[in-house]
Amino acid sequence: MGRKRETAAGSRADFAYHGLDRTMHEQARLGILTSLVTHSTGLVFSEIKELCDLTDGNLSRHLAALEAAHLIEAKKGKRDRYPQTLYRLTDGGRRRFLAYIDELERVVTAAQLVRAPSRERIRGSPAFHPT
Amino acid sequence: MGRKRETAAGSRADFAYHGLDRTMHEQARLGILTSLVTHSTGLVFSEIKELCDLTDGNLSRHLAALEAAHLIEAKKGKRDRYPQTLYRLTDGGRRRFLAYIDELERVVTAAQLVRAPSRERIRGSPAFHPT
Repeated sequence: MGRKRETAAGSRADFAYHGLDRTMHEQARLGILTSLVTHSTGLVFSEIKELCDLTDGNLSRHLAALEAAHLIEAKKGKRDRYPQTLYRLTDGGRRRFLAYIDELERVVTAAQLVRAPSRERIRGSPAFHPT
Repeated sequence: MGRKRETAAGSRADFAYHGLDRTMHEQARLGILTSLVTHSTGLVFSEIKELCDLTDGNLSRHLAALEAAHLIEAKKGKRDRYPQTLYRLTDGGRRRFLAYIDELERVVTAAQLVRAPSRERIRGSPAFHPT
């Protein structure tokens, strides 16, 4: 992940972002994973729901998918004497998510280059003649 | 886009990335859009295909979807006397894609914080007691 793959022709596929793992590359899941990676002790359902502005059904569905992919783990317990489920990233999940984030950063860096005014930033193509 | 939405409870949904437009938030499309935003004069089919390491069918399908969403435009013409189609971002597409990229940058910045060693970066949760 994060590395460029050589294409069949041997040339570099600069904009092939193969490291964008589809399990994580989903709007709501990105929110859930980012909330969990920044809360290393874990978060309970209601906290994630609020932080990510998701409905119960939507959050449940995404948590189940992330757990099935071994990215997160759920632990039943109590807080303030109420039964709750705590969600955390697994060790492997944290590694995979941060590798995914590195790939995402490549996208952002490449795209943000066009905003840098003083660099040779816009690449042209050979002459093209509209018909 | 790029702004946090207040939730019903009035609290802030720090990890709700509503600006991640689903039309653009797809692995191959991110590659296509990033290649086009960095090549302001446009790219022909074979160039995008190589830069993004996509098959003909896959690329055609995504280009059609991006054109239907008015993010890109296709122009028929000739290069080196061969008929080719040149693809470019529309003005609106460029604006929308850069707004999307800003939102993506929020995700990356939030997640990368956990790698900063010397900052108060990991937020805890109230005491949780496993059962």
